[in-house]
Amino acid sequence: MTKKTETDGLAKLVESVLANYREHGRLIKVGVSDQINREAVIEVVHKLQALVFPGFFSQKPVRQDSLAYHVGDLLESVRHDLTKQTERAFRQQQAAKKISGAPVVINSFLERLPSVRNLLAADVEAAYDGDPAAFNHDEIILSYPGVFAITVNRLAHELYLLGVPLIPRMMTEHAHNQTGIDIHPGATIGHHFFIDHGTGIVIGETTVIGNHVKMYQGVTLGALSTRGGHLLDGVKRHPTIEDHVTIYSGASILGGATVVGEGVVIGSNAFITRSIPEKTKVSVKNTELKFMFDKRDEPAPETLQDEFWDWVI
Amino acid sequence: MTKKTETDGLAKLVESVLANYREHGRLIKVGVSDQINREAVIEVVHKLQALVFPGFFSQKPVRQDSLAYHVGDLLESVRHDLTKQTERAFRQQQAAKKISGAPVVINSFLERLPSVRNLLAADVEAAYDGDPAAFNHDEIILSYPGVFAITVNRLAHELYLLGVPLIPRMMTEHAHNQTGIDIHPGATIGHHFFIDHGTGIVIGETTVIGNHVKMYQGVTLGALSTRGGHLLDGVKRHPTIEDHVTIYSGASILGGATVVGEGVVIGSNAFITRSIPEKTKVSVKNTELKFMFDKRDEPAPETLQDEFWDWVI
Amino acid sequence: MTKKTETDGLAKLVESVLANYREHGRLIKVGVSDQINREAVIEVVHKLQALVFPGFFSQKPVRQDSLAYHVGDLLESVRHDLTKQTERAFRQQQAAKKISGAPVVINSFLERLPSVRNLLAADVEAAYDGDPAAFNHDEIILSYPGVFAITVNRLAHELYLLGVPLIPRMMTEHAHNQTGIDIHPGATIGHHFFIDHGTGIVIGETTVIGNHVKMYQGVTLGALSTRGGHLLDGVKRHPTIEDHVTIYSGASILGGATVVGEGVVIGSNAFITRSIPEKTKVSVKNTELKFMFDKRDEPAPETLQDEFWDWVI
Repeated sequence: MTKKTETDGLAKLVESVLANYREHGRLIKVGVSDQINREAVIEVVHKLQALVFPGFFSQKPVRQDSLAYHVGDLLESVRHDLTKQTERAFRQQQAAKKISGAPVVINSFLERLPSVRNLLAADVEAAYDGDPAAFNHDEIILSYPGVFAITVNRLAHELYLLGVPLIPRMMTEHAHNQTGIDIHPGATIGHHFFIDHGTGIVIGETTVIGNHVKMYQGVTLGALSTRGGHLLDGVKRHPTIEDHVTIYSGASILGGATVVGEGVVIGSNAFITRSIPEKTKVSVKNTELKFMFDKRDEPAPETLQDEFWDWVI
Repeated sequence: MTKKTETDGLAKLVESVLANYREHGRLIKVGVSDQINREAVIEVVHKLQALVFPGFFSQKPVRQDSLAYHVGDLLESVRHDLTKQTERAFRQQQAAKKISGAPVVINSFLERLPSVRNLLAADVEAAYDGDPAAFNHDEIILSYPGVFAITVNRLAHELYLLGVPLIPRMMTEHAHNQTGIDIHPGATIGHHFFIDHGTGIVIGETTVIGNHVKMYQGVTLGALSTRGGHLLDGVKRHPTIEDHVTIYSGASILGGATVVGEGVVIGSNAFITRSIPEKTKVSVKNTELKFMFDKRDEPAPETLQDEFWDWVI
Repeated sequence: MTKKTETDGLAKLVESVLANYREHGRLIKVGVSDQINREAVIEVVHKLQALVFPGFFSQKPVRQDSLAYHVGDLLESVRHDLTKQTERAFRQQQAAKKISGAPVVINSFLERLPSVRNLLAADVEAAYDGDPAAFNHDEIILSYPGVFAITVNRLAHELYLLGVPLIPRMMTEHAHNQTGIDIHPGATIGHHFFIDHGTGIVIGETTVIGNHVKMYQGVTLGALSTRGGHLLDGVKRHPTIEDHVTIYSGASILGGATVVGEGVVIGSNAFITRSIPEKTKVSVKNTELKFMFDKRDEPAPETLQDEFWDWVI
């Protein structure tokens, strides 16, 4: 292509893209001087992680004599950046009345940090107690995806409760990208919460989880029906899980009226759509397997009905 | 270790590594002046995302009066980088005849951007309509992993159709890393496509999906058999999904001859290997659960056969 | 808020955070001059990847005449950084006797690189043979998440065998973040190992896998019971998989005494808690589906019992 052809070609491309922009107003953010900045939100997440677990993720060592400065610097940085992004979020949602309240909202959020840390301390203990493969607490804090996910979620949940739009979900979707664990910031989660492995977990917005709950990869705490779309806003659509429940891999528990009672154990791959009384163990009944020993022989199927509970707690 | 020992030690290590390089020719790219650059491809993906959703992901605001320059600059940058990587991809595949055609191929690709945006506009609408938890369109564009995955896939698919090697798959595997959603760039997908949650979804190369299709985490649209290995190149191995189909979490639909008819709903964890007539609802029959109420008592098993459709749409 | 109020407010926040730090000693690493650096470990992973697959991931081309320098430079950089992080890991675990042994440990590790590459060469072959969608070996090395996961795991496993704490798990959890594939560095894996798709795979610490094993997304090789918590340290809790086994998506194989015999094929979603004799095919018996053709008519359920093996190898 000649240079002129190239320039003409580019001009045509630009024109066709601009024309398409005009057709789809929802897909552009132009002329918005304060567009919420996703990178800035992710940066805040990592500074909050550094505040929650000081010294674990720093490039430079954190020293006792300078600890107050380190903390003050991080807190101020988070306060500034998060307030700015929150103002932008309110502005975008045309919640103009709220914009001036952003500093107070973020201050309230930061005042919650000690409470969030208390919960996370218990979560780390739960991880250590719940996983024989855990080498020590350092390993858990440094590398367990479940701990990263619950750290981000507890922080995002506080912002959600304070009515901050957009940002909580951006934070949890970042954690979802990193860990494969998808917990909506609206979910309410008690203390000593442990996710082991975690890839594929989905926990919906109106889920309520009690204390000392443990779950494995692929678990869904979800909604039964999305019929009604946005008429369902505000309605409880996701289940309630009471204290001391264990949910094995691949299980699904669905429905806003579904309550899993205290001490219940849900077996792998169970599909639950109604409430379970306390202290019950629930497993999939038909775990029958079919065996074929050799393709050429008469298949000698041998069915095997495992008692899940002979083998598992 | 003394310094001399260290140097000798290093020399020995280098020698053993180089010797091993000579044993495995396929694992090295040495002397290739134009090795395809994965980071450059990922950079292109993010610039294309900025072209598709201008202003959402920028560090600086995008202004109306400079929009044409912003778009022109992005388009030229993508055109230049993608053409270079495409030439390298052709060269690597020893498709020498095609190298000179790379600029035309990439120009054709960029001319498809408006069509791709039209499809993505519908996908964003489908996400809003299909998810009661969606706060607004901004939240969907900024943070939904399903939207990121389909954005990358629609773009990669255009390159795939134009015969560009390697690059389409590199793009979709990047989206897979980010989202846990694994859609081969060869898959053909209609409009108003919505993936909710999405972790664990696998959609194979020769899958054909219609319009207004919705699916949840852990769904596989896969092949029945890989027997025959590369003899199967070009053969349809993955299913066809007609319009207005909903596929709940964990379901598997396998086979190149399998057609899921219009309006079908596939229940959670269903395993489908034959075609389903239109408007049918398919669920797993044996969702029987076994309950044990107390370990010390006589187990009083109570089986429960849920009608999946009593509860779900 | 006035500036004074802001400063007072910040001082109060700092004080409350510091007070909370004193309550939870395990959640802080302060005054530790040599905290293990997660970013440095991830950097080492990527340099090792460049050593294993030279030229594939470089920004600049790797040339034949400078190959020895390129390799020597990478090896020295890895040796230096990994030795430093290993010393820190030993120090943190209060394994003071071992700190001085870190250089020897890391030298032993680097001497294993050719052996690890031999295994990875076979893994790449297995990927090519096992996936009809694989365009060529380049595509596999550049973009297959299963290959990245097994690359990191084989390297981390060598460090695990050499008794290095923390670092192996940090490496594999990084690969887990990237790929959704969760393989503990303690797992022992034979040659020609292929993971296709892979999202959601979990392979436990004491798993033993033979040669020519292939598995799909969502497979769990796990423990039956975590009762006993850390009393189980050192006990084999995860299964043994013999040569030439194929495990389809979503299957779970649990238990330290469970042995899956040579040539066995485990069907999708099977749940295995006891040993399987060689050459057996195992599938879920009750794949019965229930069909409802029209909500208003009498439901005409039609059950369908698929023979999994009619359809799959």
